[in-house]
Amino acid sequence: MATRLRPTERRETHDARRFAPLPDPFPMWRGGVLRGARIAYETWGELNAAKDNAILIFTGLSPPAHAKSSPEDPSEGWWEGMIGPGFAIDTNRYFVVCVNSLGSCFGSTGPASTNPATGAPYRLSFPDLSVEDIARGGYETLRSLGIERANTIIGPSLGGMVVLAFAAQFPGATRRLVSISGTAAASPFAIALRSIQREAILRDPDWQGGAYTDDRPPATGMRIARKLGMMTYRSAAEWVERFGRQPVRDDLREEGPFAPEFAIQSYLEVHARRFVRAFDPNCYLYISRAMDRFDLSKHGSSNAEVLARSGIERALVIGVESDMLFALREQRALAEDFTRAGIPTHFAPLDCIEGHDSFLIDIKRFGDEIGAFLG
Amino acid sequence: MATRLRPTERRETHDARRFAPLPDPFPMWRGGVLRGARIAYETWGELNAAKDNAILIFTGLSPPAHAKSSPEDPSEGWWEGMIGPGFAIDTNRYFVVCVNSLGSCFGSTGPASTNPATGAPYRLSFPDLSVEDIARGGYETLRSLGIERANTIIGPSLGGMVVLAFAAQFPGATRRLVSISGTAAASPFAIALRSIQREAILRDPDWQGGAYTDDRPPATGMRIARKLGMMTYRSAAEWVERFGRQPVRDDLREEGPFAPEFAIQSYLEVHARRFVRAFDPNCYLYISRAMDRFDLSKHGSSNAEVLARSGIERALVIGVESDMLFALREQRALAEDFTRAGIPTHFAPLDCIEGHDSFLIDIKRFGDEIGAFLG
Repeated sequence: MATRLRPTERRETHDARRFAPLPDPFPMWRGGVLRGARIAYETWGELNAAKDNAILIFTGLSPPAHAKSSPEDPSEGWWEGMIGPGFAIDTNRYFVVCVNSLGSCFGSTGPASTNPATGAPYRLSFPDLSVEDIARGGYETLRSLGIERANTIIGPSLGGMVVLAFAAQFPGATRRLVSISGTAAASPFAIALRSIQREAILRDPDWQGGAYTDDRPPATGMRIARKLGMMTYRSAAEWVERFGRQPVRDDLREEGPFAPEFAIQSYLEVHARRFVRAFDPNCYLYISRAMDRFDLSKHGSSNAEVLARSGIERALVIGVESDMLFALREQRALAEDFTRAGIPTHFAPLDCIEGHDSFLIDIKRFGDEIGAFLG
Repeated sequence: MATRLRPTERRETHDARRFAPLPDPFPMWRGGVLRGARIAYETWGELNAAKDNAILIFTGLSPPAHAKSSPEDPSEGWWEGMIGPGFAIDTNRYFVVCVNSLGSCFGSTGPASTNPATGAPYRLSFPDLSVEDIARGGYETLRSLGIERANTIIGPSLGGMVVLAFAAQFPGATRRLVSISGTAAASPFAIALRSIQREAILRDPDWQGGAYTDDRPPATGMRIARKLGMMTYRSAAEWVERFGRQPVRDDLREEGPFAPEFAIQSYLEVHARRFVRAFDPNCYLYISRAMDRFDLSKHGSSNAEVLARSGIERALVIGVESDMLFALREQRALAEDFTRAGIPTHFAPLDCIEGHDSFLIDIKRFGDEIGAFLG
């Protein structure tokens, strides 16, 4: 996602995060356990007495739990226009919780965290991470708040897969589900892209088998990974309108052979620089691979059979025509699986021009769908 | 293009190439000259007495002049099914010439060639390369054969841009033109992709400012560049059918963290390994940048105005709906430019599933269009 990443330093002054301790030991879906692990989360709105008004939001690959500004952290959140009093996700009615994914690096336990058994960072000794584990992290966060059943779970991109893993693992733990620009199983195109992104990091000499230092991260690999992300998060048609063949930004001009010449290169450069500072490479590798591996149907005999056991009362599936990474056909198939499972489902194919990242940009259209669904 | 690249070694035994000397000095479009330069080409069929039955083919970024097998070189060519007696490009009627692009590394002069002034390879001392120079290389090849006017010039991908540069520079030098999956000016999406491919090579420590050695080329950069090429040459929908979520090929299994797990990764790996052995990195950088820079409209006041001066009598523009790299809207706009220039033009939008590379695969549908056009 093209969301603004915020370096951890800034969080020292403004920090709205809370931390939910995970059960100790915390069993990982593919084996291994975590000790003393935790999930970073933020909340907006109030939990009601019946504890039945909670909305749990899972993020895409790279954002933190800071989906929305608040008095404790007034900086803009990654879904600022979607959440708030009277907004599509209405904090006058709902208690909204957004979790930083297990395995990420914005406060939840991940490969960059200290392993309490050794006092050193986990790095590659972190156990295999699955989308299922990220879902369990969110589930346990709700339980730590005394919430047995969510009103709705919502997730875009990776989050659109996590909500399915949540439904598969915790029957009855949510009434409703919203999957946005997600998929029931990664497509070969998405696997191709992500495996090339990972290869760029793995083959960067500075990766050093995961033992890179803070002052010398695998910057080349991370830069290429991020630029490829940006390339596939938007759409070619949007870029024609937005950048065309304009020349490179003056402040990003470089000397030397094959220096950037076009504005689109400046755009990628700005995002790449920000990402190298903000995101941990090993965390990136773990979460990226987890996305490749996810396959809802492995939880039963078919997607529909798995969903039929989930206890979900209503579902909303949103997709975007211009999304090259999570194709609309995948969201359509998912909506059909929900319907086949006997769950009343609304499928909303949107023809936004902004590609996979449309949910971050076209707040009006996504908000209309989500707001109408939440009722 | 996903065509089979053939290492130069194999050419020692079977080689159908001829070499056209370029005018000495050969002026480059953006400045500088080449001395003692040449173009490698192959031919099929016979030039008639009037010398008016020549078809000139320009290639995509990476193929050699070997478009078709012949007694001198019986190995399969990159457009094997398209050219031959009774084929769409009928060698019973036409004298077919395919040129290796100027700047490439399969016999034509390029950055990997020896600079006669120094006795050492050009590398980055090679002058700036433009699509216009590649067009001139083909033009001069025809002249060296005594051909003043081509019957038809044909080019797919990069070649689809080169034929436009040919039309702009050499009015009257061809009667007809076929542009396949090309564009009149690179789109920001294509520039983004290519600039990331180049960055992977430029930041590979083994690139060494272009002074890499034969035994240690920038293999990581070339691997990533090729895998990204393969990813954007086909379509996500084709890969669902072809690979789905099948596991990695047994002979390509690896040990170690983040090893490949899916068949799509094996496919990319096979192509990447072949490419690293076959293609010169500096040549790749030069041609790739030339594609970014090309803009037909720079030859006059508008594309239509430029084309109106070309002396072209008829044009065929083919594009593919599933092409993410050279979008169908670009071919449609080009066909409109031809029509606006007063040139009878057939626009053939094909709904092939194979993406940008469809012209290499769906020989039937492309052959039907080309054959009907050639009449």
